[in-house]
Amino acid sequence: MLKELLKRVPQVFMPALAGVVCFSLPAMADEPTASQALFVVNNTWMLVAAFLVFVMHLGFATLESGLTRSKNTVNILFKNVLIVAIGLLTYAIGGFNLMYPGDAWIIGKWLGFAGFGIAAPEGAAGLIGYADGHYTYWTDFIFQAMFAATAATIVSGAVAERIKLHSFLIFSVIFVGLVYPFVGSWKWGGGWLDVKGFYDFAGSTLVHSVGGWGALAGVIVLGPRLGKYVKGVSKAIPGHSMPLATIGVFLLWLGWFGFNGGSVLSADPGPVSLVFVTTSLAAAAGIIGAMITSEIVQKKPDLSMVLNGALAGLVGITAGADTVSVMSAIIIGIVAGILVVISVIFIDSKLKLDDPVGALSVHLVCGIWGTLAVGIFSINPEHSFMTQLIGVIAYGVVCFPAAFIIFSILKATMGIRVSEKEEYQGLDISEHGMEAYAGFQIFTNE
Amino acid sequence: MLKELLKRVPQVFMPALAGVVCFSLPAMADEPTASQALFVVNNTWMLVAAFLVFVMHLGFATLESGLTRSKNTVNILFKNVLIVAIGLLTYAIGGFNLMYPGDAWIIGKWLGFAGFGIAAPEGAAGLIGYADGHYTYWTDFIFQAMFAATAATIVSGAVAERIKLHSFLIFSVIFVGLVYPFVGSWKWGGGWLDVKGFYDFAGSTLVHSVGGWGALAGVIVLGPRLGKYVKGVSKAIPGHSMPLATIGVFLLWLGWFGFNGGSVLSADPGPVSLVFVTTSLAAAAGIIGAMITSEIVQKKPDLSMVLNGALAGLVGITAGADTVSVMSAIIIGIVAGILVVISVIFIDSKLKLDDPVGALSVHLVCGIWGTLAVGIFSINPEHSFMTQLIGVIAYGVVCFPAAFIIFSILKATMGIRVSEKEEYQGLDISEHGMEAYAGFQIFTNE
Amino acid sequence: MLKELLKRVPQVFMPALAGVVCFSLPAMADEPTASQALFVVNNTWMLVAAFLVFVMHLGFATLESGLTRSKNTVNILFKNVLIVAIGLLTYAIGGFNLMYPGDAWIIGKWLGFAGFGIAAPEGAAGLIGYADGHYTYWTDFIFQAMFAATAATIVSGAVAERIKLHSFLIFSVIFVGLVYPFVGSWKWGGGWLDVKGFYDFAGSTLVHSVGGWGALAGVIVLGPRLGKYVKGVSKAIPGHSMPLATIGVFLLWLGWFGFNGGSVLSADPGPVSLVFVTTSLAAAAGIIGAMITSEIVQKKPDLSMVLNGALAGLVGITAGADTVSVMSAIIIGIVAGILVVISVIFIDSKLKLDDPVGALSVHLVCGIWGTLAVGIFSINPEHSFMTQLIGVIAYGVVCFPAAFIIFSILKATMGIRVSEKEEYQGLDISEHGMEAYAGFQIFTNE
Repeated sequence: MLKELLKRVPQVFMPALAGVVCFSLPAMADEPTASQALFVVNNTWMLVAAFLVFVMHLGFATLESGLTRSKNTVNILFKNVLIVAIGLLTYAIGGFNLMYPGDAWIIGKWLGFAGFGIAAPEGAAGLIGYADGHYTYWTDFIFQAMFAATAATIVSGAVAERIKLHSFLIFSVIFVGLVYPFVGSWKWGGGWLDVKGFYDFAGSTLVHSVGGWGALAGVIVLGPRLGKYVKGVSKAIPGHSMPLATIGVFLLWLGWFGFNGGSVLSADPGPVSLVFVTTSLAAAAGIIGAMITSEIVQKKPDLSMVLNGALAGLVGITAGADTVSVMSAIIIGIVAGILVVISVIFIDSKLKLDDPVGALSVHLVCGIWGTLAVGIFSINPEHSFMTQLIGVIAYGVVCFPAAFIIFSILKATMGIRVSEKEEYQGLDISEHGMEAYAGFQIFTNE
Repeated sequence: MLKELLKRVPQVFMPALAGVVCFSLPAMADEPTASQALFVVNNTWMLVAAFLVFVMHLGFATLESGLTRSKNTVNILFKNVLIVAIGLLTYAIGGFNLMYPGDAWIIGKWLGFAGFGIAAPEGAAGLIGYADGHYTYWTDFIFQAMFAATAATIVSGAVAERIKLHSFLIFSVIFVGLVYPFVGSWKWGGGWLDVKGFYDFAGSTLVHSVGGWGALAGVIVLGPRLGKYVKGVSKAIPGHSMPLATIGVFLLWLGWFGFNGGSVLSADPGPVSLVFVTTSLAAAAGIIGAMITSEIVQKKPDLSMVLNGALAGLVGITAGADTVSVMSAIIIGIVAGILVVISVIFIDSKLKLDDPVGALSVHLVCGIWGTLAVGIFSINPEHSFMTQLIGVIAYGVVCFPAAFIIFSILKATMGIRVSEKEEYQGLDISEHGMEAYAGFQIFTNE
Repeated sequence: MLKELLKRVPQVFMPALAGVVCFSLPAMADEPTASQALFVVNNTWMLVAAFLVFVMHLGFATLESGLTRSKNTVNILFKNVLIVAIGLLTYAIGGFNLMYPGDAWIIGKWLGFAGFGIAAPEGAAGLIGYADGHYTYWTDFIFQAMFAATAATIVSGAVAERIKLHSFLIFSVIFVGLVYPFVGSWKWGGGWLDVKGFYDFAGSTLVHSVGGWGALAGVIVLGPRLGKYVKGVSKAIPGHSMPLATIGVFLLWLGWFGFNGGSVLSADPGPVSLVFVTTSLAAAAGIIGAMITSEIVQKKPDLSMVLNGALAGLVGITAGADTVSVMSAIIIGIVAGILVVISVIFIDSKLKLDDPVGALSVHLVCGIWGTLAVGIFSINPEHSFMTQLIGVIAYGVVCFPAAFIIFSILKATMGIRVSEKEEYQGLDISEHGMEAYAGFQIFTNE
């Protein structure tokens, strides 16, 4: 009785789960065709790519907590766990249909995916018809949803160690649920920039610089951490665990095989394997570029710079990973590695913007570099430097103000910064009532 | 000479390794069929799923050591490494054939897999004949063996910080080698519960609550850690590394893509991709459910609760991941997230059962919830709440007493609990003669 | 204008990126054949294997830093990050073509891959013609390049805590760029040992003992760490983080699914799944073998021994993973587990060779054991113990002196060892000017 009643509840929202059935191969057991076999491979690869992008969230969690102080570790981990949840759920409820509106979308579709109206597009015909027969509707969602959540995570590192938890979470909901899919649709949803010929293979701009603009707004509205700038001089605040930071970079690189490799949107051997090569060599070149620059500028081989160099190369290659040669990938990576070291120092000591993990340099500066690099190195003659520049500017012009306004409204209403006392004490105790490393004796000098 | 002799040794046990050859595609190089291509994809996906389930063991190792004290870290890591070895080897020697007896099994088959009698079923015909042509005999083994080892790992967290190493290892051998495959065969081996219509897609009951019942028996027989209950009041004993615990949860989630995704037993795009979506959204909803409950009940956003919320959602969706809608998955996850917080507090402060990592709440309570949820939310009209309830009870009625008896016999013979002095000192020094963090200054307050 | 100029730069080196196009399936959208579907699966599996081997680099980074002292952690992490970069780039520039010269190679081919001359072999015909139609040219490169970098990483653990950073990096460039591909070509490039019938499936010798010989040379030329041998007695220098070490072993095991599973060079279900089983059971048996030996010899269950036991089993099975029975794999693993414990103790206290992480025992001793084990356990009658022995000796005779000469030249010119003061202080401060765990109070009683 109760069972019957409860069973009906979700079905009110989702008339039928025909989708589950319709996507199954109709004749899998009997006499499959090569076309069906290819569909299964493509779909499997896209799901592998999805779980690799999921790994990036662990990468961000470990990188960001490693590069900050132990008194704020629980807070950073908490934010990174919550962002995955928020990213997936907001994307399910609205973002998915907002970003990929299809031919014509209506308000009903907006709330469609999570079960409030439609099951799957076009019923049984969806098998071959959906995504050019490469993968299912569910695969499309989970891959894109894992992507979406990364944009907000980029922000979390830059605003670490001083932002209020709940304010940040509200920002994330709005940023992932509205801003990211709205501007994303310009290109990946077939919008005006796509029509114009703008190219961003896997998101140097659509993901990384979008996150970077959000981070920039957050850093400006929040201001620097206490004790970061003493009499106008920048003071280094070292992270508490280089092993955690290094684990983070390796996991991000691992995830990037899915981030870029999955952006081929099929398992087509040529492009996917080329993307693996360009992605890896750009990361490797970023490491070398950052190491040499670090040795020249800082007179020592700095591990955090080298780690950021790997990420810089990865962000840099993301826009053009399928359309540049191996040698071009190496050049893009080296330049990104050089850029990241110089810009970390410049942003910190000249602009006096306090970005604890270097997210602005990695994601914004190298995201822009990677997008422009498509206009320089692409073998596709249709890619133009000017169009790429227009795209870069368009995203900045919308995302930065949007994030700035959201943060400013939050600041004016519920506040976005913890009190001085809480910041000194650390957010772990003040916001969460617990320590990250119970029992360990740790100096919290300042 | 010696070589010839030694070469013969293993062949006595394994007459021929025909299996290696017979599973290879007979005409791969010449003119493959679409059927063969599908076989290769399905098999590849199942192997990917197997390595993802392997990742769960690292997830448990890091989660459990993160949530306990640094003086017992080596011990926990040791147990988790050994359990993988024990799980794989006992499953090879006996469990595999015990759990999946086929049409009729004899004692010879029991010891069959590891090479003591048979090579592979049905020779060359095994290619298409085995597992509906979805994967090979070896793939079946490795996927199932990785699964089996998880049931014992669940126990290890609950009995942490006080159990004797060797007693636990003996328990694990019996539990993984006999109890788990015996009760598993009721459903997955085509036994009486399967006939009855009981449904447990990937093991909310068969793996998680089986492990949970074992954990409950262990916790009761062992008693609480020293200093846990002072004058009847529960005292919090915080874990020593929240980064380790968080890494653990992310890795468990990652592994769940294989645990649930592989339980489709093929790469069939519809069900596998739906399972990815329901699994992820249930975990996300578990996080939100736990966070809200934690903020209401504990008046602060507790990271360990949120981490357990993710696991709760994952355990909860496991029984029905392929048979519920997206919206139902979200509801199942939220309820699991709420349940885990309430039950952790209830078990700890009311029942006074000392479960250092919350394994009872995550695996037993949410395993039961997930199994019953199939009876509520499944779109398959054949799934019934009553049958699910019967299954839940049947597993409890057998597994709890079985584990209780094993632990009690071990207690009466070799003892299961370390001495008070050893417990105060920590198991790392007393059982292993080494520290987890040499050089670090750590307070071991109590 | 500038754009046009810059766009031309990489194209001077890489006339056309025809490779990207030619590898794509010509008729993917229209009417694919089963052959094409198989090509896509095989290629996808090889890319999965490539990212799994990539994970091994994180495994080495965490294992090696966990087993050494916290004052040298940044240095070890730095080396492991740089080695990936060096491995990938040197392999792109030269190693790839050096190791797999094809029918006849000329100097132009040497520098061919990275874009200095050729695009992809044989143009469009490369689709089916390359690698027996199993995967693309790019896939071949990325899988092999990830492999190549592991050989140098093996050395890094053995020379840890005292080697100069830049000297080690130069050694790595030469070792990965020249020595590894040169000797590798003897077998995998179709050279004289291949003709002779020597068998090394995935590199017990070609990767692990090559790295091991390099490590032996490094350990001898460098000498032991300060304070390691006091009046001829070996003093234990415990590693600073057993969780990191354990994470490392699990990740290495995970990576080995790609290292061995990918060495099938296709997704052929029979061999790949057998390799998963033999690899896992050998690792499991290595754990048990090491545990029992450790309990007998050391009178306690030593976690680092058990961890090395897992690696020993993995290294041991690597040469014959596709050609031995399940039972043989278990025997190979147990023997490796026993060998590793005995040899760690013997090398440390009798030979007085200071190898902080046990790399000589794991990679050299068990690499040799695994290679010889093929001659004992292989089901292929063409594999002979004598040929395996000849191979083992041949690699030792060339690799050890080669590495010894490189290290000696570096010692005589730029020096390979840090000063006593720097070694006491730790390489993190002296070479990198930073701490791994800022804020934590750590005793550095050398």
